[in-house]
Amino acid sequence: MWTVYLSGEIHTDWREQIIAGCAELELAIQFTSAVTDHQSSDAAGDHLRDNENPFWRDHQSAKVNAIRTKTLIEQADLVVVRFGDKYKQWNAAFDAGYCAALGRPYITLHDEAIIHPLKEVDAAALAWAQTPAQVVEILRYTLTA
Amino acid sequence: MWTVYLSGEIHTDWREQIIAGCAELELAIQFTSAVTDHQSSDAAGDHLRDNENPFWRDHQSAKVNAIRTKTLIEQADLVVVRFGDKYKQWNAAFDAGYCAALGRPYITLHDEAIIHPLKEVDAAALAWAQTPAQVVEILRYTLTA
Amino acid sequence: MWTVYLSGEIHTDWREQIIAGCAELELAIQFTSAVTDHQSSDAAGDHLRDNENPFWRDHQSAKVNAIRTKTLIEQADLVVVRFGDKYKQWNAAFDAGYCAALGRPYITLHDEAIIHPLKEVDAAALAWAQTPAQVVEILRYTLTA
Amino acid sequence: MWTVYLSGEIHTDWREQIIAGCAELELAIQFTSAVTDHQSSDAAGDHLRDNENPFWRDHQSAKVNAIRTKTLIEQADLVVVRFGDKYKQWNAAFDAGYCAALGRPYITLHDEAIIHPLKEVDAAALAWAQTPAQVVEILRYTLTA
Amino acid sequence: MWTVYLSGEIHTDWREQIIAGCAELELAIQFTSAVTDHQSSDAAGDHLRDNENPFWRDHQSAKVNAIRTKTLIEQADLVVVRFGDKYKQWNAAFDAGYCAALGRPYITLHDEAIIHPLKEVDAAALAWAQTPAQVVEILRYTLTA
Amino acid sequence: MWTVYLSGEIHTDWREQIIAGCAELELAIQFTSAVTDHQSSDAAGDHLRDNENPFWRDHQSAKVNAIRTKTLIEQADLVVVRFGDKYKQWNAAFDAGYCAALGRPYITLHDEAIIHPLKEVDAAALAWAQTPAQVVEILRYTLTA
Amino acid sequence: MWTVYLSGEIHTDWREQIIAGCAELELAIQFTSAVTDHQSSDAAGDHLRDNENPFWRDHQSAKVNAIRTKTLIEQADLVVVRFGDKYKQWNAAFDAGYCAALGRPYITLHDEAIIHPLKEVDAAALAWAQTPAQVVEILRYTLTA
Amino acid sequence: MWTVYLSGEIHTDWREQIIAGCAELELAIQFTSAVTDHQSSDAAGDHLRDNENPFWRDHQSAKVNAIRTKTLIEQADLVVVRFGDKYKQWNAAFDAGYCAALGRPYITLHDEAIIHPLKEVDAAALAWAQTPAQVVEILRYTLTA
Repeated sequence: MWTVYLSGEIHTDWREQIIAGCAELELAIQFTSAVTDHQSSDAAGDHLRDNENPFWRDHQSAKVNAIRTKTLIEQADLVVVRFGDKYKQWNAAFDAGYCAALGRPYITLHDEAIIHPLKEVDAAALAWAQTPAQVVEILRYTLTA
Repeated sequence: MWTVYLSGEIHTDWREQIIAGCAELELAIQFTSAVTDHQSSDAAGDHLRDNENPFWRDHQSAKVNAIRTKTLIEQADLVVVRFGDKYKQWNAAFDAGYCAALGRPYITLHDEAIIHPLKEVDAAALAWAQTPAQVVEILRYTLTA
Repeated sequence: MWTVYLSGEIHTDWREQIIAGCAELELAIQFTSAVTDHQSSDAAGDHLRDNENPFWRDHQSAKVNAIRTKTLIEQADLVVVRFGDKYKQWNAAFDAGYCAALGRPYITLHDEAIIHPLKEVDAAALAWAQTPAQVVEILRYTLTA
Repeated sequence: MWTVYLSGEIHTDWREQIIAGCAELELAIQFTSAVTDHQSSDAAGDHLRDNENPFWRDHQSAKVNAIRTKTLIEQADLVVVRFGDKYKQWNAAFDAGYCAALGRPYITLHDEAIIHPLKEVDAAALAWAQTPAQVVEILRYTLTA
Repeated sequence: MWTVYLSGEIHTDWREQIIAGCAELELAIQFTSAVTDHQSSDAAGDHLRDNENPFWRDHQSAKVNAIRTKTLIEQADLVVVRFGDKYKQWNAAFDAGYCAALGRPYITLHDEAIIHPLKEVDAAALAWAQTPAQVVEILRYTLTA
Repeated sequence: MWTVYLSGEIHTDWREQIIAGCAELELAIQFTSAVTDHQSSDAAGDHLRDNENPFWRDHQSAKVNAIRTKTLIEQADLVVVRFGDKYKQWNAAFDAGYCAALGRPYITLHDEAIIHPLKEVDAAALAWAQTPAQVVEILRYTLTA
Repeated sequence: MWTVYLSGEIHTDWREQIIAGCAELELAIQFTSAVTDHQSSDAAGDHLRDNENPFWRDHQSAKVNAIRTKTLIEQADLVVVRFGDKYKQWNAAFDAGYCAALGRPYITLHDEAIIHPLKEVDAAALAWAQTPAQVVEILRYTLTA
Repeated sequence: MWTVYLSGEIHTDWREQIIAGCAELELAIQFTSAVTDHQSSDAAGDHLRDNENPFWRDHQSAKVNAIRTKTLIEQADLVVVRFGDKYKQWNAAFDAGYCAALGRPYITLHDEAIIHPLKEVDAAALAWAQTPAQVVEILRYTLTA
């Protein structure tokens, strides 16, 4: 049983595609990830106290989210980091750097159009995939070849 | 003598402002950073072999650059990570994640306009500054207060 | 299944409230903690040998207690550290510092009245909660959102 | 040359006594510590931005202070942690826990009256001293015997 | 479920006493130890090749034994190190030092007659017991109090 | 239950002999290894993208293989590294060095004819075996003596 | 001042070429390496005791050599690992694996003819160079660009 | 400049012989060790407080001594551990185990008569020497060959 953490972009169904592809192959993988509902994630700390200052509101929620993400990344055997073509996605690059320093293997998943700005992130990755199906194939190979 | 690594954006003179500000105060700090000449950095591995494929060209240069950046970040007492308002700057976020996993303290330097996409990066930082002068003040306080 | 260690104050029922709140939500959490019976804890080493000197009696019992606390904190995924308004509670702050150096995430639980003396402890925490219900909400979010 | 970090209580001259005692013996020790001016320390982050909420003001300053304290504790060969008879001094106990988890040796310095609440902190220490002169004697022995 | 490694002296039935005492109390402990049959242990590597030189015979067997002992000590939650009044038992003191550097908690078990030569070993231990029954009591307290 | 990783030579049936020998003795061991089908292994990354340059083709596949090998070596309790008399087998020596730096125990398996070029690799190993049957005997002793 | 360890092949003057090239550029580098005199290295432990068995003679010398190599590799900022076209050179691949597990950056130096057997070693390297001059250029760039 | 810690037996002049031998060869070595005056060492903590109980007196002094020994062992590049033919010398075996778990290389120095009880300690050492002159020769080779 491997644990694979799915990090990054939350606007397309790449997570579902990978999970479904692995389920079809009956691979023994437990998938984990950050909370992917954008509004819940932004509000994760709001019940603790209201903050007029948006910096502290974000700070408070980001730390509550880190309880989950930090622990799950450290428990993962492999991390997949997805970059889309919109938004800054600095949290995805942050997760990749976190994995690199921990020695936790990760795969990047992104289009060819953004290989240049991702060169440092890709250089420390063990693979660059362009499609969820390629990630599934890497997982199939890794677990069953 | 402290060592401070300056990571991130290379299009404005924020590094020079911090270095000059600390020099004026005669703070005992050695500053280090990645190679900040964009073209040299992109070409760092070109002398090893030509690659038609832009992915491998970037890969090769990014790894050569990592010899410098990885070593200097691990030797630093403090890292300052600067995010500008243009470009993806995923390498800056990657460096922040790397620092977080190592337990190496870092400060972020960016405008208020981008606090939301940087919330995870800021949550693991020890300070968020908006101007180089604020970074200099933190360094002055840390070394001489 | 997460493991959550409950550290600190032993005079109110905050542990029971958190455990009951999580049970109601059927969260998959195993709770651990130090021995919370004050007299048993103070006497933990008395069967080894009597000590006239109270320093060595305390020393001997504190070390026996550390067999349990050190191991359980290192095995925890998350630690909750509770500070009441009475007593010194230096062991709670000690546990927080221990977590910080290990990179083990922790939440503090205390009233607003003592935020100033706890500022260093809170600065390294991932959340500050004022009520057990807020801790339960963080756990619910972390495990099920 | 040893580096000794002096942590804790800031209302008496125990630091000066230790430093003077070691100077008299010409021991090759560099002493470091947190910023011990209470008001400067509380205001360490105020130049970054004002916060109406006292929690965030403390949070911001405590993190700026951590840039100094975390780095200096990790660089120290030995830490002396002083507990006075007033105030909560949770930051001192936090520093002791931080040292314990890092494996950094530390000595406690406190009166006999508070050995019971400090039993966990003392149990992980390599010595308990009651006077600055005893700390000086330990340093003399360690460096020159 | 805790794992407790029993290290040291092999000529009396202290292991059996501890195991039986814990079984009676139904403590959830898995006990491990080195191979305690002296002749098997000395001959552990003999099937690999004969050595005329007794140093290399011992060397070869000691390394084969280390496959077991090193792994089991690193997997243990607690180690009990027993010193008898005969023989050198340097391997027991070696195991204690190994535990100390790993941060693995250990208890020593020995008579009062040898406290002086064991002072360094005892100083890094979390308890000194004189009888197997005291060890059982520590385990009962640690697991069930 | 122990986990034993079998590294190195893929042209003879040494893996099968060890696995069968342990099965006969009913030893509780889970065996893992790299993908041992040579062609699959060389092609592990081909589905990601074609590379005209053989260096990058190998690079890409070797990194995909590392997802499996790095993780399984780090999860193993013991590694067996087999060197045959043909081919360079630098990956086997690389795995041995990786184990040595991690502190993961390993056994080498090779003929007497190559003890000289393997002296550094053998010096950090816990045993040198010449036959699969000797490895089985070490495993039997380690798990059941 | 950087420290660069030169590992591997001892039959050509690649070390001298790198050292001379860096000297010409006045790069602030301290070079270290194993003892490169083959006979001295093989005889490193002979003064301790004679061994009829060649395995133990090699074992004894290899361990004495490890006092030097292990310490110098751990102190290096960068390692260059050279593979020639003759001999097994398993110690070079072992050093590369050791660096990989430590997170110590390394460069490989070898001809194109052997990229396939070195694919795992190259996959974890930060650069592959074919000539000493390329290594010098990487060092120049890393230290002075 | 290497740092070599000399651990163990304090009744013969083996330390002086090694230091003199290295001085003659002008080897750049800084030697460190525990306090070797037996009475000072036993009394190291007596100034802190008197203890009627000999266990606590030893405990207190052993911990004060550990401030020195733990720090110096961790700073050493190499440790020499000497076992004489008298006394228990459990602290020497403890130091060897401490080095083994840290990955700090060590050499043992003892007569042939005690190879059997020292087999575990020797198995983790990088060399066994019988005379101080052999240790000097290893140091000469390591630093200057």
